[in-house]
This record gives sequence, C-alpha cells and structure tokens, in this order.
Amino acid sequence: MSSGPLDIDDANGAALQRIVDAEPVLVDVAPAGETIPELRDMVLLHAGPPIGWKEMCEPMRAAIVGAMRYEGWAANDAEAETLAGSGEVKLLPNHDFRAVGPMAGVTTRSMPVFVVENRAFGNRAFCTINEGVGQVLRFGANDRRVVQRLHWLADTLAPALREAVKRAGGVELRPLMARALTMGDEMHQRNTAASSLFLREIGPPLARATTPGANLGDVMDFLAGNDQFFLNLAMAAGKATMDPVAGIPGSTVVSAMSRNGRDFGIRVSGTGDRWFSAPAPMPQGLYFPGYTAQDANPDLGDSAILETMGLGAFAMGGAPAVAGFVGAGTFRDALNYTREMAEITLGSNPNFAMPTLDFSGVPCGIDIRRVVESGVCPIINTGIAHKRAGVGQVGAGIARAPIDCFVRAIEGFAEKFLA
Amino acid sequence: MSSGPLDIDDANGAALQRIVDAEPVLVDVAPAGETIPELRDMVLLHAGPPIGWKEMCEPMRAAIVGAMRYEGWAANDAEAETLAGSGEVKLLPNHDFRAVGPMAGVTTRSMPVFVVENRAFGNRAFCTINEGVGQVLRFGANDRRVVQRLHWLADTLAPALREAVKRAGGVELRPLMARALTMGDEMHQRNTAASSLFLREIGPPLARATTPGANLGDVMDFLAGNDQFFLNLAMAAGKATMDPVAGIPGSTVVSAMSRNGRDFGIRVSGTGDRWFSAPAPMPQGLYFPGYTAQDANPDLGDSAILETMGLGAFAMGGAPAVAGFVGAGTFRDALNYTREMAEITLGSNPNFAMPTLDFSGVPCGIDIRRVVESGVCPIINTGIAHKRAGVGQVGAGIARAPIDCFVRAIEGFAEKFLA
Repeated sequence: MSSGPLDIDDANGAALQRIVDAEPVLVDVAPAGETIPELRDMVLLHAGPPIGWKEMCEPMRAAIVGAMRYEGWAANDAEAETLAGSGEVKLLPNHDFRAVGPMAGVTTRSMPVFVVENRAFGNRAFCTINEGVGQVLRFGANDRRVVQRLHWLADTLAPALREAVKRAGGVELRPLMARALTMGDEMHQRNTAASSLFLREIGPPLARATTPGANLGDVMDFLAGNDQFFLNLAMAAGKATMDPVAGIPGSTVVSAMSRNGRDFGIRVSGTGDRWFSAPAPMPQGLYFPGYTAQDANPDLGDSAILETMGLGAFAMGGAPAVAGFVGAGTFRDALNYTREMAEITLGSNPNFAMPTLDFSGVPCGIDIRRVVESGVCPIINTGIAHKRAGVGQVGAGIARAPIDCFVRAIEGFAEKFLA
Repeated sequence: MSSGPLDIDDANGAALQRIVDAEPVLVDVAPAGETIPELRDMVLLHAGPPIGWKEMCEPMRAAIVGAMRYEGWAANDAEAETLAGSGEVKLLPNHDFRAVGPMAGVTTRSMPVFVVENRAFGNRAFCTINEGVGQVLRFGANDRRVVQRLHWLADTLAPALREAVKRAGGVELRPLMARALTMGDEMHQRNTAASSLFLREIGPPLARATTPGANLGDVMDFLAGNDQFFLNLAMAAGKATMDPVAGIPGSTVVSAMSRNGRDFGIRVSGTGDRWFSAPAPMPQGLYFPGYTAQDANPDLGDSAILETMGLGAFAMGGAPAVAGFVGAGTFRDALNYTREMAEITLGSNPNFAMPTLDFSGVPCGIDIRRVVESGVCPIINTGIAHKRAGVGQVGAGIARAPIDCFVRAIEGFAEKFLA
C-alpha cells in the first residue's frame, strides 16, 4: 500500500527514465554457477513464469533433458525424465535469478553466461551464449551433437571470450545496440549488424588473448557464423535494463514479459515479482521448408524482454528487413507496428534512434492501462519451435501478448494500490 | 560506325544486363606493380580524367608528393615537386589501367591493391587499401605519419590479408554488398555494415593465417577501427562491374564517372575510352568542426564509380543514416534522391535490393539521353578534401555531375554513331 496519495504518473515517469538511463556493459563471461550462487547441482532455470515438469511443453522438457545429460546428472533421457518428474531436480524461472534465456531458456551451473552490468544502477543480469540456429537446445533439440556443442561453448569459447572481455575492459552494449538499430537490426529476430559489430569489438582483444587450448580460428568461425549470436547479449542487456524498473510503487509500467510455452506472463513495476499470466498465443509467421503452423509450439522464451525495453517488434519500423523474415509484411507494415506500439507506451528512448523514422527513439515503457484501454497488445518478434521434442526451430513470426495478462495486472495493481 | 541500323535500345539492354550480371570477387591483395605491369618506377596513377601536374589541385599534388617520398623517388617535397613538374614522373589516370582510387587516388607500384575479379566476365580491377579517415594521403595529407602508415599497409596488413584471402578461396563481394545494403550502407559515404561484414568474412582465415611478422592484433585493430575500410573494396567491385559495360557499340549508358579535382569526366559505353569533361562541381555538405565551404576543394576522386553502378547516392533511399551525414536531409529526401535517379537510369539491379523500398533494386544504367532530356544530373555522395595541401578531409556532402559532360557525350555519341 502506498503512503499518501498515489501519483501513478510520477511513478511511471521514474520507470521510463530508468529504461532510458540504462547503461548495459558486458563485463564478464562466466560459468552460471559462479555468478548465480543458487545454481547448484540439480537446480535448473527455465524461461517464462513458473511451471512444473508435467505442464511443460515438449521442447522445454527436451531442453531440460539435454541439459541434465550435459551436466552429467543423468546418463540418458529416461533417467533425466524420471529425475525431473520426481521433483529431485528443481525447476525455477530465470527471471527470479536476474537471468533470461531464449526459447526454452534452460540455464544450468556449468553453462557459461554473459554477465551484463547496468552501470547506471549497478545491477547485473545474465544470459547463456547463443548456440547457433536450427538444431539447438533452446529449440528443444538435444542429441549428442547439441550436448557436444554445449561443452565446446563452456570449454573453448567462453574462456576465450572471458579473457577478451577482460582485455577490452568490458564492452559497452548501449552504443553498439544503438548503432545496430541504425543498421536494420531490431535485436530480436535480426541481430546481423549487432553480431557483426560485436565481432569488430571483440576481435582485436580476442586475437591478443592467449587462452590455452582455444583455437582462435574456430572461435572466430563460431562468432562469425551466427547472425543471431548477439541475441543473447541483447537479452542480458534487456534484463539488466528492466530489473531496475521493477518495484517502483504505483508504477503501471511492464517490467518483464515472458513465455514458458504454456503461459504468457507479465510483471508490472508496482506489483514487483508477481506474474500475471494467460495462455501463451500461437505465433503467426513463416515456416522453414517442410513445416507448417500445425508443427508450431505456443510462444516460448524470455526473449520478449527485448520488446519490454522497446526493441524487437517495437522497433520494427527501424528494421525493415526483418518484417519479411517474420512474415509481418511490407516496410509500411513495419512502420505501422512501431507506431502502434507508441500508443501503448509512455515515451521513447532517444538512445535508440531509428533513421527510417528520422531518428525518433524506439517506443518504450509499456503501460498496462494503455493496453487495456486501447485493446492494443504488445507485439513480439519470435522464433517458432517445433511442438515435438528434438526437432528444433521451424520458423519465425510475430505473437501478440494476451490481453488477459494486462486485465489481470490492472486488477492486481488495483488490489495493491487502490483498494 | 555501326554496320546496319543502330539499335540503341538493344545496346543499352546489353549494358544494363552486364551491370546486373557482374560477380565481383576479391581474389588477391598484391603490390600494384605486380598486377599492373605498366606501374614501373616513376609512373604514378591518379584519380579522374587525364590532367597535368600544373593543373592539378593542391590535395592531389600533395598526395603525389607523399607517394613519391613513400616510393623513395624523392627525398623531400621540393625534390618531388621538381620531378613531377619536369615530367620525369609520368602521371596517368587510374581508369586507364583497370584501377580506381578514392579522392586523389594516387597509386604507385609498391602500394598494395585489392584485386577484384568479375567472375561473370573474367576481367580484373584494382584499388588501393583504405588508410583510415582524417589525415590520409588520399585527402592530401602527406606528413611522416601518413607515409609510415603506407609502409605498414604494404609490409604488415597486405601480406596478412593476402594470405587470408587465399585461405578463404576469395571473398564474394556481391552477396556481401547486397547484405550491407539491407543494413543501411550505400557503400560510398557509409560502409559501416560492409566493413563489419568483411571483417566477419576475413577474420577466421586471418586468425588461421600465419603471416611472418604480422601482428594479428594490430591487423584486426586496423580493420575493426575504420568504418570506411570497405569503400576501396566497393570501388574495385564497381570498376570490375563497369569495365565490361564499356565499348558496346551504340550504347548510351555511362560506364564511368570520375573527378580529378578540376574536371568531372564521364565515359559512355558506345564511345569507349573517350572522356567527356566539364569543370568539377563544389560539393554541398556538412563540415567537420572548424571548417566551412570556403575550405573545400572541388569534387575529387574515382569513387563516383559507385554511383555509376547504382550505389552511393543512387541507393540513398536504402541508407537513411547516411543522408544526415552528407547533409542530404531527412529519410524522405533520401528516398526522393533514389527515385530521382530512377528517372535517368534504364533499370534497376535486383541483386542490390533496398528493404526501405520494399526490396526494389537500386537504379542503374545511367542513360546520357535521359540526363540531357530531363536535366536531372547524377548525384554523388562524396568526401570533401581541404583545398590546401596537407590538411586532409574536412567534411562530406553531395555533388551533382555537371550537365555539360552529358551534353558533350551526346554530341560525341552522335559524331560516332549518327553522323
């Protein structure tokens, strides 16, 4: 309960300012267990709001099974499923541990994570390293090659990056992301520019880093070979940006949006850690050859943190090339999505300017009141996972956050502040 | 004279098709003297149509003096000026030797050049390596540091790049440039994306290349530190693209546009190597702090080969961020420049698609008839050199090709084909 008259506008102004003021900096690449002390053996983080093993979608279960084999907690899939189903392995949301993960979003102690510090507020956030596209753990693939790649990330790539980041004295992500936005990235389904710019930043210190056992050519190949490499860095920057927005009394600004493959959940600044959830929508999009909408899993992943900060679909007007990729239409449609999102946000972020909109900033600060009043729901650019275990990514598209999340959030907000 | 009735449309159709079909590939980085046998001692290439020492602008003379010190042909500036003025050093246009060079465009035998092969037609073209921005030879700076950098390019960078290009089996430039265009580059005054993408391509083989004496960290720093690094590669690709367009009987398509700081010259396919020149225009643009239009040299450099192939200012609608940099106005203005250039070109190149124009191709195939009929002259995005020796770049802007070049070209064409 607030003491004194509640000024929602003041609270929201503070929330918006915190989004704008954020200064995310990549400061380390470290094993998750080193940076998140709660990540012990048999503790596993997943995307979205809390959910039990039995309620999880197949790709999330498959990712969990793969991660358990990777950690050596189970020798095979059957053993892993029994352990997970029995409750011996604790399954907890990334968001409760300052972490985010794309799609299934599975994070375990031995997985390396990007450590991103918000220098304006001192908080840190974490995200695993992007594995590449196609047959990858986050989309529910979990065969031997997927697990082998996870070991390579931990044993070769991460130590090399760690040393390079240290030599670079950290990598400032805000200017890099701002630049990528002027190069057609919205940093959710398109990270071509940001991944390239990151390689430009990290390439020289990487070349100078003498990490024993690391094959610089292989490391450079991996970084150069994945247009979506930067996605996970953008997500960590998003989490580092949005965590200080949480917990401002009286603020109706959305501080997180996330999906676990069954539920779409949002958190609101004023109501803190409480999730307001509704069934996850089906993405509308374009499918890789051989797949159709019948194969799609409901919307999944913590990556909607990007839309929460004003990137992704919110910045589509600045990223016309992504519109075709996610099946969102023409350049005009892309501009209209950005304009539509301006209707449900409190302002814009001048640090993230779009040349195609004459350098106006991306719309940010989603206000649950505006969403419910207008009926316009946040739009999210998303990857699409196959609904069956082991297949992987089958397409990309757009999803609308369910209106019920926002209606429930208004109710929850009213209970807390206006009762 | 043509035999039989002259079909200008057929000839122009063939010219346009050659622009579209071009497949420029970086195949080597070699000393200019190795790839251009005519480049012996005391032979020096410059930008633009032919011009004598006494008529040259100061920045071009300064670049020539610096190059002569670099080659060891003169111990100091006075000696170099005497040699150049006496005619003992032959001064010839790059364009006559399948080469191009930005701004002063000076090329001498020891300078390394990019070797770009047009795989569709088998011809090769050459361009020196971009030195960086500011105090550089091409803008007429020539002090000790400038000459030292030229030695580093030849002794350290070029051998490392040569080995990496060899390991990579060549670098295909058309897809890379197409991609950069979807990332807001027009590849004349903005090469941020293309330079980043090139580093992504060459980074892994560079990391594996064991070039004796090369410091990989320094090489990576140099490549990563210059947003305009790709300009010279784009120019070599432009020359490799446009050379096969030259010499088609009856074609009124422009095959080259270039400036030597005094004259703006064009070549037309049907009339071969003949230049049609007029006084070089003054660029209209934005100046670096401390400089004004009073400091500017008239338009300079072979880089207008990019506009000749449909990039640069012709593609400005696809590169909204460059419009502000060159003082060309808003995004709408940028779109209008591209639309205006469509009025004087014969078609568009589907291989270079602009997302902001719903993936329509860049306008290309400048028809001298359309220019003269409409009075719309090609627009060029350009760097601006200080008119005095030794200063360097003072700004960036846009320049209009003089209508007189096109009027004279029409006359020359009529003399040859319609007399």
